Amino acid sequence: VPLSLEPGRLIAAAQGGDRRALARLLTIVEDERGGAGLVLAAAYPDGGFTYRIGITGAPGSGKSTLTDRLIGHLRAAGEQVAVLAVDPTSPFSGGAVLGDRIRMQDHSADSGVYIRSMASRGHLGGLSAAAPRALAVLGIVGFDYVLVETVGVGQDEVEVAGAADTTVVVVNPGWGDAVQTAKAGILEVGDIFVVNKADRPGAEDAAADLVAMLALGDARSWEPPVLAAVAWQGTGTREVVDAIRSHRRHLEGSGGLEAGRRGRRRAELEAALQEVCSRRVASLAASSTHGDIVRSVADGEVDPWSAAEHLVSAGTDERWPR
Amino acid sequence: VPLSLEPGRLIAAAQGGDRRALARLLTIVEDERGGAGLVLAAAYPDGGFTYRIGITGAPGSGKSTLTDRLIGHLRAAGEQVAVLAVDPTSPFSGGAVLGDRIRMQDHSADSGVYIRSMASRGHLGGLSAAAPRALAVLGIVGFDYVLVETVGVGQDEVEVAGAADTTVVVVNPGWGDAVQTAKAGILEVGDIFVVNKADRPGAEDAAADLVAMLALGDARSWEPPVLAAVAWQGTGTREVVDAIRSHRRHLEGSGGLEAGRRGRRRAELEAALQEVCSRRVASLAASSTHGDIVRSVADGEVDPWSAAEHLVSAGTDERWPR
Repeated sequence: VPLSLEPGRLIAAAQGGDRRALARLLTIVEDERGGAGLVLAAAYPDGGFTYRIGITGAPGSGKSTLTDRLIGHLRAAGEQVAVLAVDPTSPFSGGAVLGDRIRMQDHSADSGVYIRSMASRGHLGGLSAAAPRALAVLGIVGFDYVLVETVGVGQDEVEVAGAADTTVVVVNPGWGDAVQTAKAGILEVGDIFVVNKADRPGAEDAAADLVAMLALGDARSWEPPVLAAVAWQGTGTREVVDAIRSHRRHLEGSGGLEAGRRGRRRAELEAALQEVCSRRVASLAASSTHGDIVRSVADGEVDPWSAAEHLVSAGTDERWPR
Repeated sequence: VPLSLEPGRLIAAAQGGDRRALARLLTIVEDERGGAGLVLAAAYPDGGFTYRIGITGAPGSGKSTLTDRLIGHLRAAGEQVAVLAVDPTSPFSGGAVLGDRIRMQDHSADSGVYIRSMASRGHLGGLSAAAPRALAVLGIVGFDYVLVETVGVGQDEVEVAGAADTTVVVVNPGWGDAVQTAKAGILEVGDIFVVNKADRPGAEDAAADLVAMLALGDARSWEPPVLAAVAWQGTGTREVVDAIRSHRRHLEGSGGLEAGRRGRRRAELEAALQEVCSRRVASLAASSTHGDIVRSVADGEVDPWSAAEHLVSAGTDERWPR
């Protein structure tokens, strides 16, 4: 029996600290090759032990540098930390190397830190399908915190970071277009806002803009703080960790933590249903059994909507192709 | 029998020039209420008589003003013209009123012009589902040309305009960010580019940028022309119509017209399959029969991916809910 078919053994090894086993589990669930379903099933029930932090923002806003600092603070407090980097521009993901500004090298010898990068594109179902699977696995092997870093451009990326327990949105002074981006969805997902590179001109304006925009929304039980930081110097980054802990306490006290997780799991189910359907649709349209009707549609003989109803019903009758 | 269940009668009336019947048919297929399937089925086979022109570009680029001028030129040549405006900022859709710059009032008394606006959001399946249905209906009631105006922001909008026989992309001098947008997909769908507001500084640079970007692509049998226009003055707009006719002749001569339409119909089938699936997925997740499993997922007891496979298989066995 190949090891990949023994999720129980791999999970036990990963929980015992075997990073190779963990890496293998992640590869299995991300690639959706044989065994993904078994691994994921074995990853539940979800004890909810691991706290998930999303970090998102425009490319170049300093998300990775901030993430690096957060790792340092959490490690200093004795926490076990995993990072899932799905930002293609992140140094964690093998993107732009920012040289001495990034200290992640310091963490590579630290067994309390595990960093996983994800090629965000090209997976079946895309990022929004692959990341939750990886996070499900990272959630059961004993980490206190999982940090998910995504570039805040595009719905998928925002969704992935937004599906965390606490979401940190990183912006820069002179944000300009990013304000537009924020209006399009980033603002809504942020629990904590960090104006990074706050030593640059315009930092106070950016913070004031954020506060003003946040005030326009509905009153919430948690008012997202807007913090200033210069992550590469380490200035203001401890306050970000404090804010995360404070948001966590708020969620735990208000019942919002479990409510948020229930919502997230329901959204994951819908996405998974959509994914199963998409796979079957692709099979249906490609199936030679249905070549005639596909050709009739292409010829303009039959309307695509009747054909689709017909194909799905046919697939239902004869069992859907797998 | 309600009139909506008699698609044949409504279609015959619409083909006879009854605009109320046409409006009713469009409402039926856009809303997907009862009868949509019957209307669409009756709209096929698609004789391919109506030539479809897509017009897209950034908000404020002057798409509507250009569309208005194109209507004028086509009408002067005796063509019957329909417009489907799915641009929320279009005056045709009830958006920004540009006063005397827009002459569409001139067309309202002209029985050879029919203008339909579409609330681009909020339909089940979105714009990319609703627009092809409306276009299928507009394609069988005797119009020589259907113009589809969409704002070139977002994948759906670009797709809808790009699924035309000839797609016209409208840009402005000092395009800046729009070049980024173009890179993201507008460039690929354009058969004709119009630098509108060409009396402003930077028009030649914008045209040169476009030519340079287009030259970077693969060699094509049709080289998209880059034209200059000042639509509100009527300058250069006749040349746009000439270019459309010239592209049409090219497509008809090369077999590209039928090939493009076959590709479009196949894409419509895939979208329709996806839509049927989404509807069934929504039913599955909402069905009280499956309340237990949905609850188990929300509770974190069962992983969403196994649950999705299980739900779809269950739905397959017991016939999918409708």
